[in-house]
Parts: sequence; structure tokens; C-alpha cells
Amino acid sequence: MTAGPGPEQLARAALSFMAEPGDQVLGALLRSCSPQEVVGALSSPRDPQVALPAAGRAVPGISRAFERWRARIGQVPSAARLAAWDRSGFRLVCPGEPQWPTQLDALGDARPIVLWLRGTTDLRHACLRSTSVVGARAATAYGSHVCTEMAATLGERGWTVISGGAYGIDSSAHRGALSVGGLTIAVLASGLSYGYPKGHQDLFAEIARRGVLVSECPPDRAPTRPGFLIRNRVIAALSRGTVVVEAALRSGALNTAKHARELCRPLMAVPGPVTSEQSAGCHELIREWGAVCVTGARDVIEIVSPAGEGTYPPRRGPAAPRDSLDPVTSAVLEAVPLRAGRGPATIATMAGVDLDTALRCLGLLAAAGFVERRENGWRVRKGG
Amino acid sequence: MTAGPGPEQLARAALSFMAEPGDQVLGALLRSCSPQEVVGALSSPRDPQVALPAAGRAVPGISRAFERWRARIGQVPSAARLAAWDRSGFRLVCPGEPQWPTQLDALGDARPIVLWLRGTTDLRHACLRSTSVVGARAATAYGSHVCTEMAATLGERGWTVISGGAYGIDSSAHRGALSVGGLTIAVLASGLSYGYPKGHQDLFAEIARRGVLVSECPPDRAPTRPGFLIRNRVIAALSRGTVVVEAALRSGALNTAKHARELCRPLMAVPGPVTSEQSAGCHELIREWGAVCVTGARDVIEIVSPAGEGTYPPRRGPAAPRDSLDPVTSAVLEAVPLRAGRGPATIATMAGVDLDTALRCLGLLAAAGFVERRENGWRVRKGG
Repeated sequence: MTAGPGPEQLARAALSFMAEPGDQVLGALLRSCSPQEVVGALSSPRDPQVALPAAGRAVPGISRAFERWRARIGQVPSAARLAAWDRSGFRLVCPGEPQWPTQLDALGDARPIVLWLRGTTDLRHACLRSTSVVGARAATAYGSHVCTEMAATLGERGWTVISGGAYGIDSSAHRGALSVGGLTIAVLASGLSYGYPKGHQDLFAEIARRGVLVSECPPDRAPTRPGFLIRNRVIAALSRGTVVVEAALRSGALNTAKHARELCRPLMAVPGPVTSEQSAGCHELIREWGAVCVTGARDVIEIVSPAGEGTYPPRRGPAAPRDSLDPVTSAVLEAVPLRAGRGPATIATMAGVDLDTALRCLGLLAAAGFVERRENGWRVRKGG
Repeated sequence: MTAGPGPEQLARAALSFMAEPGDQVLGALLRSCSPQEVVGALSSPRDPQVALPAAGRAVPGISRAFERWRARIGQVPSAARLAAWDRSGFRLVCPGEPQWPTQLDALGDARPIVLWLRGTTDLRHACLRSTSVVGARAATAYGSHVCTEMAATLGERGWTVISGGAYGIDSSAHRGALSVGGLTIAVLASGLSYGYPKGHQDLFAEIARRGVLVSECPPDRAPTRPGFLIRNRVIAALSRGTVVVEAALRSGALNTAKHARELCRPLMAVPGPVTSEQSAGCHELIREWGAVCVTGARDVIEIVSPAGEGTYPPRRGPAAPRDSLDPVTSAVLEAVPLRAGRGPATIATMAGVDLDTALRCLGLLAAAGFVERRENGWRVRKGG
């Protein structure tokens, strides 16, 4: 915001007006040519086989791609307009810059060309300890509740919650994190000034103020249907792992899950009632895709934490000391009556053990507070 | 019921009064001695090292076991009483007999000594295509509903439902199967005439009439706390696989699950709301024990069926033909307006494709009924 965008930022921003997000021909081309070289070649009327540096000419599909990109060259705004956007709070971050989250490089040629950001939070730093929490727009009250709780706990524990800014689960994820002062990142399928869905302008403003809004698209670009699916790879790639909270069998959240799996990032799903269509996709993820069944933030943190961090003691039901008895002692205890006393010989017979064993076990049980000896024999100790 | 119990049946019945179910010393002893020889040795006052055939004397723990068993010899009823039970409908089935379910032999020395049955159904045959469906006594309305539906569908498809006759999930499993005329088997932890829980006498009578009641214990034996856990191994061993419908973190159903896993039988669990304590055990089974997440009878049948049987087409959400379009055609369709017509050049630019591609895609989309050409250009076809 001080010096304005540099030449590489301007070139990449220009390319984001011409190529669709995730265009792998452009990704491949940028491995051998600079963004400025590509923009230069697109701006000339010449065939790419002439206009491009030699290394770029061998990229498969380059001629048709040039046709596609050049068809939109009229949409690229002036450098002055780009600089004005930058000044008004739409920051550009390019690969290799300090704020670029290097885990996006796992996307290979489908890596974003550039990211547009709103918010002052350091994106790379915010993503270091982050989890994607995604799911159905048509969330149920159950899903929204579970998602809000999960995101709030993740936020409290210092985990950034990444989601897609949509209605339903996405918004519960963002709001849950915000509710505890946690960091949250929304990766939009539209441009950031377009801000889809329109009903979330307040939420987006809040995220920009306290977290960061991210998009691969120019600020005023409307979302397209395929754009949502293409955006999902960024959500999966930014985070250490992806949790699907609710999803029907054809939910877009399953697409994010697919990206997480392709990137070999932990994939998690929250189960729900089998009677709920909005949990059917989650159960499918668990059953068929090997997603881990997670029931809350605690499970998620265990899975996305680096080894040795974030472990919890195993879950246990309420303490039941009887469970810790060996079978013989347990059988003897069973033979001890609740009220009237009973003699050790009778107890031994009922328990199917010999008298010595019965007496030894009764002694142990008395010492442990389970039974007591009265004038008329042994009985279970109250509260024992 | 014609000839009355034979000598081996009588001897094994007598042993079931003296030894606890699952007594592995007795199981080991019966590998080398006949039940009649063991009863003979127990009836003599002599040391087992003298009274038993040579092969039986080497069984580890035999001396202490003899003390345990002899302590209860007074409880063994006369052969006439055993024959009377048999006549009144408590059948005895021994290992090696035609109705003995050979899959119980997987329990090794913990295999039941004998089974007491009520009901005329052939036990071995009924277990060939069977699944255990078990769970919490404190079932929720959700669990009971899912369990009843699952058991009814299993019953309709010719699968026998095995459970433990308890309140809650067990009773939903039995009733679900009965509701469609399916076969069901209750394996009780008490004797069959004792019939625990007492509140299920009508259910047990119905199961005896249309399925079969099973117990390892003499008919009038009351249940013991360890007896429930020991009984669970029979439920797991009789069936091809075990489904846990609802279970808290310390539910006895998890013990049945443990047996199923030890026997290498498929273990399945039904997920539920993560906010329900009665589903926490199921989620733990899925997450930590590798239980398969099943959402209904269809999943269960797929898993317990022999290879090649019981497969279903993959689940799909409602058909959405747009999903089947390739990305380029999809992008072109996105660029076609809903109402006012739009020219192909504009559509090509908006979709980021060249004109030829746009025209080819528009032709395909028109043929498939997605778009139509009007005087003023292309638009989306109503209902397309």
C-alpha cells in the first residue's frame, strides 16, 4: 500500500483478467516465462510461437490458450486502475513474496497466478496453523451448531479457520471463529469487491477487518458455476486439513474433500444422523474415501497437529471401578449380597470358586472398599 | 423331543451347571476327554490327576478348576429333570450335532459347552445368513428408529438378525425383524426360563415361536454382570458381522464389537449426532477401531454378503445433467443468459473460449436441450 504494485504483480493481475483460475496451460507457461513476458506476448498481435521466449513455445496447448486469453485482453484495466484497487485495500500477493502461502505450490501448474487479498493479516502466517471447515449451504440446525462449536474451539486454540464464505456451514465456520476472536480466512469464488453471496457483505467486512478475504479473481468478477469447484482447490491447499461438517451426496463440499485427498492432506468428516440427507455425503466420505470420523475440534486438532503436539488423553466414559476387576474377583463380588450378609462358603459356591479364592478375593474387595464384613456375613458396602 | 437327550447332551448339560460359560479350562479338557468322562471324574471323590483319563491330566489349571466345578455339583439336576426340560421345549444342542453352528468353533476353548434352545427353527441354518445388531439399552428415539428400519430390511432380504434380548437397541433389532416376518435370534445372558429382562417375556415368547432363543446357561440361571460380557462372544461368533447401532463410550455393545474384531468378523457402526452420548461409542469404533460406517441395511448387506452377492449401485444424489458437462462446455453454458438473447461472440468472450469453440459447444448444448437460439441470440431453454 506504500509503493503500489510492482511489475510482476501488475503482470499477474493482468493475467488474472484473461485466464480462468486454475488454467494449467498458463501455470506451465509461467514455469519458463516471466508474467511480464507472457503479458508482452499477449499484447503483441503475433503468433505465440513468435511472440513468446523460446522456452514457452513448447508448452502444449499454447496456441489455443493464447486465443482464449487474447479474447479477453480488452477486460484488463490500466495499471492506474490496478494501483487504485491496491490503494483501496485489495492487495496483490504473488508466488515467492513473503505473504505467499508456500503450501499452494503443491497445486503445481494449477497454482493460483496471483491472490487478491482484503485485510491486513499476514496470509502465510495465518495459514501455518489452519484447518478448512466446509459444508453444505443447506445446513441443518444440527450442522450449524456443531460447526460453530468446532470453529470456536479451533479459534480458541489458535487455529485459523478457512472456508468459502457461503451460506450454511461456511458461514457458521467463519462466525464461530470470529465469536472467540479467532482468525478466519474466506476464499471467495467471486472477486472481492463483487463479494458473493451478496447477503454476506457484513460478514466479509468483519473477516477483512479481523482476518483475510482471498480470491484468485479480479475484484469485480462475478462467480461462475465451475468457478466454485475451481476455487475449492485453494481452500484445500491453504490448510493443513479439511473437515466436511455436513454435505449431501452431491454437495460441492465433496469436491473440496477430493482436492484435500489429492493433495494428501488429512480429510475429516463429521458424522450425523443417518436419517439426514445433509450428512449422507459425510458418511460416504468416511465409508468410501477413508475420511476420519471427527466429532469435534479436539479430534481435528489431534489430526492436523504436527506429531507430538495436540494430543489428548483417550476418551473414557464415567469411571466404573468394577470394570478394572479380574473375572474371578468380579464373580466373587457378584455373589456378595446388597443387604443381608452371606457366608464365604456360600459366596464361593455361588461364584464357582474354591473357599480360599473366595476369601482372598473378599479381602481384596474389602480393602478396595467394595464389600464389608458384618456379624451375619459379607455384604456390598454402601456407595462401594 | 422324541428320544430325549442322549448321554453326551446330558453330560454337557450337567457341566453347564458347574462351569461358568466360557471356562477355557473346561474347553481345553474337552479337547482330550469326552464330556461323560469329565462328569464321571467330577462325580468321583478322587483327585483329577487320578480320576481323569491321562490326556486330561495335563491341562493347565485342572486341579483348581475341579475344585470350582465340584463346589457346584449339588446344583446339577437329575437326568429325569433334564429330560423334562427337553420335553417342555428347552432343546439341547451340542458341538458336532447337525444344528450346531460351526462358526462357534472359532471361539476355540471358549466355545460354549452346550447351547440351550427354545424354538423350532434350525439354529445352524438360521445363522448362515445372519448379522448381529446390538447397542445401548438407553437407546434414543433416533437409535431405536434406525435400528428397527435396519432390522426390518435385513429381515426382508432374508438375513437373520441376532441380538441380546435387552431393552433398547436389542429389542428394536428383534422387533424390526419380527415386524416383517424375518428370522431373529436372541442370545440371553440368563437361562431361558429365567428370561432376563423379565419385561421381555412376550418378546421372548414371540422369538421362540418364530425364531430361536439361545443360552449357554441352564434354564433357571439368573444373569450375572460378567455373564453379559461373556455372552457377547456368542453373539459375535454366531453371525457374519456385528453392527453397533448406538453405544455410549462404556456400553457393553463395545464388548461385543471387541469380540467381533477378535474373531476377524466385519465390524460396523451406525453414526449419529456428535451431540449424542449414545453415539459416542459408535464414532469411537469408526475412528479408532476401524469399524465401517454404515447408514442402513443396504450397507450392512454389502459388507456381510459373500463376494459378488449383495452389491448395490453406488449412491448418487438427484441427477444433475449439468454436472456431466466438460469444463469448457460448462463455461459456455454459464455465459448464456436466462432471458435476453446473447450473440455467440459475446458468449465466447465471456466464457474465455474462441468463437469456433463457442459455436461447437452451443450446438451441443442446443442438441442436449440446455439452450435455444432466438432471433436476438442464444438463451437458456426453459426447464433446460
